[in-house]
Amino acid sequence: MDIKTLLPPIELELQRQVARLDQPRTKSFHEMLTYHMGWTGEGAGPEATGKRIRPILALLTAASCGANWELALPAAAAVELVHNFSLVHDDIQDNSPKRRGRDTAWVKWGAPMAINVGDALFVMSSQAIVDLKENYPAEIVMKAAEILHNACLDLTRGQFLDMSYEERNDLGVEDYWHMIAGKTAALLAACCQIGALLGGADDELQEVYRSFGHYLGLAFQVQDDILGIWGDEAVTGKSAASDLVEGKKSLPVLIGLSKKGKFAERWAQGPIKPDEVEEVARLLASEGGYGEAKEASIQMTDMAINSLREADPQGEAGEALFELTNRLLNRDQ
Amino acid sequence: MDIKTLLPPIELELQRQVARLDQPRTKSFHEMLTYHMGWTGEGAGPEATGKRIRPILALLTAASCGANWELALPAAAAVELVHNFSLVHDDIQDNSPKRRGRDTAWVKWGAPMAINVGDALFVMSSQAIVDLKENYPAEIVMKAAEILHNACLDLTRGQFLDMSYEERNDLGVEDYWHMIAGKTAALLAACCQIGALLGGADDELQEVYRSFGHYLGLAFQVQDDILGIWGDEAVTGKSAASDLVEGKKSLPVLIGLSKKGKFAERWAQGPIKPDEVEEVARLLASEGGYGEAKEASIQMTDMAINSLREADPQGEAGEALFELTNRLLNRDQ
Repeated sequence: MDIKTLLPPIELELQRQVARLDQPRTKSFHEMLTYHMGWTGEGAGPEATGKRIRPILALLTAASCGANWELALPAAAAVELVHNFSLVHDDIQDNSPKRRGRDTAWVKWGAPMAINVGDALFVMSSQAIVDLKENYPAEIVMKAAEILHNACLDLTRGQFLDMSYEERNDLGVEDYWHMIAGKTAALLAACCQIGALLGGADDELQEVYRSFGHYLGLAFQVQDDILGIWGDEAVTGKSAASDLVEGKKSLPVLIGLSKKGKFAERWAQGPIKPDEVEEVARLLASEGGYGEAKEASIQMTDMAINSLREADPQGEAGEALFELTNRLLNRDQ
Repeated sequence: MDIKTLLPPIELELQRQVARLDQPRTKSFHEMLTYHMGWTGEGAGPEATGKRIRPILALLTAASCGANWELALPAAAAVELVHNFSLVHDDIQDNSPKRRGRDTAWVKWGAPMAINVGDALFVMSSQAIVDLKENYPAEIVMKAAEILHNACLDLTRGQFLDMSYEERNDLGVEDYWHMIAGKTAALLAACCQIGALLGGADDELQEVYRSFGHYLGLAFQVQDDILGIWGDEAVTGKSAASDLVEGKKSLPVLIGLSKKGKFAERWAQGPIKPDEVEEVARLLASEGGYGEAKEASIQMTDMAINSLREADPQGEAGEALFELTNRLLNRDQ
């Protein structure tokens, strides 16, 4: 099964959901959403939409359990709408001017409008999940809604921790795991659990798929953290070590701080300037920041792969799920 | 039926919903929500919680259709959580430093945290509505969720119109009605429709109750607009005519502008200063702004009362619904 075949129906379903605002008096509101989704405006196109990992995961999981993935499309749209709501609000909260190479919503229309754009995407995610009722019994739809809403609350928890960590200097490595469990892993776990639910899996198998999504999210985030310091600019598309300059409390940094060595000393002295980044990154690596983060990444990747093996996804969709996982976690390189 | 007896169970249910964040790592996040809800922090208490009109409406409507209102408590919490989510985001968008006499969430914790507080309240409203599943069949719960989500999208529409109107000088009176239909009436309509649904009313009666809520919202907003210019400071708690100074495009102002007379001339010359407010308010009244707005308010009030009569709410709850309507629309004075 070629993942690419899933993309057009996903985009169509997303467009159908967002079209709720395509009305005479809210045309320009609708355009704010279609811009953010990557469909309209300067730089629109596949580069601007993002990879749609979450809906793909939901559909592949449903299909791997033996179901017709097309029936699950509203759920696929729902998880992607949640992701995009969180991006719009995140960009305001982080004061980020760019997203996928384009101006962010708050830069284009101001923070008040952008808050409202995020809110609308959020509402639409709830509406999309209820749209499953055309294809599934009400009890199933309600369970899918519950899983989605719980993941959304976890997102706000993760966001809270992330923001509150900025001002804290007493963080340990375990604080990191709690934060990314909410910010990154919760929604991916929900994608897989909802996919399994809609695919007809029993509670136990749903939990296994949920674990897979959870560890996939953790592994992916740790990897992202490593690339944020030692990444190849040509691969990541952002200047390597920018996370150090931004003072981001990523896993390697928290590991480095826990050593109370020279890296911790340097960190305590204030912001790291672009011209010291290479040196500080080398210092952090020499004190275990790289190696231990890499080890954690391998551990989480193993957990994800083991969960997926336990889930035993069927058919071509199952193969595609393994391929996608390997690609996301760089196991094919 | 004394409305006051509904308040303690409403607060309890709200607290139960918000307690989802009352966990070791999110204690201070939970506190942000309990502060906004009026339960904790400086100035906490009945003055700070607001009047809980929306949950009261939902419960009275359910009881007026002959049902046990206690079963509808999660829906009552859901509509109040939606209202409060919109207040938190509204305060950021409007840059409002005070709400019910207390510092707003963004003043206390900054806009990024406050955005997240609103998001969490929003998620909890969806979780609360799904909690109805303990007491109702899944089909009913899903319909309640749909009504709620549709109202939420209407809220974002109204918010968009409100913000976009700030920069427009070509607005007519009909633009006003579209805006408050979303900002004020949609959620009140949803409260009454959901109450009727949970009370066991058929589709037709649900629509009648929905109309009642809709017109109640419109009437209430128009009245609020009139008070915002010609209100008695002792009654409204805010300085009379502050709406003129803020340049708010309320109904009386839009009526005045449509006359293209001396008020419109003065309005076009720029912001109105506090010391001219009395004179400008008198000018606006002399050109029909007061009289026509008052007439619209009476019309909407009649529509609300007529819808309520048509709904024919039963028992003590029905009487309480008429009383509440009269009180909200100042018909008892």
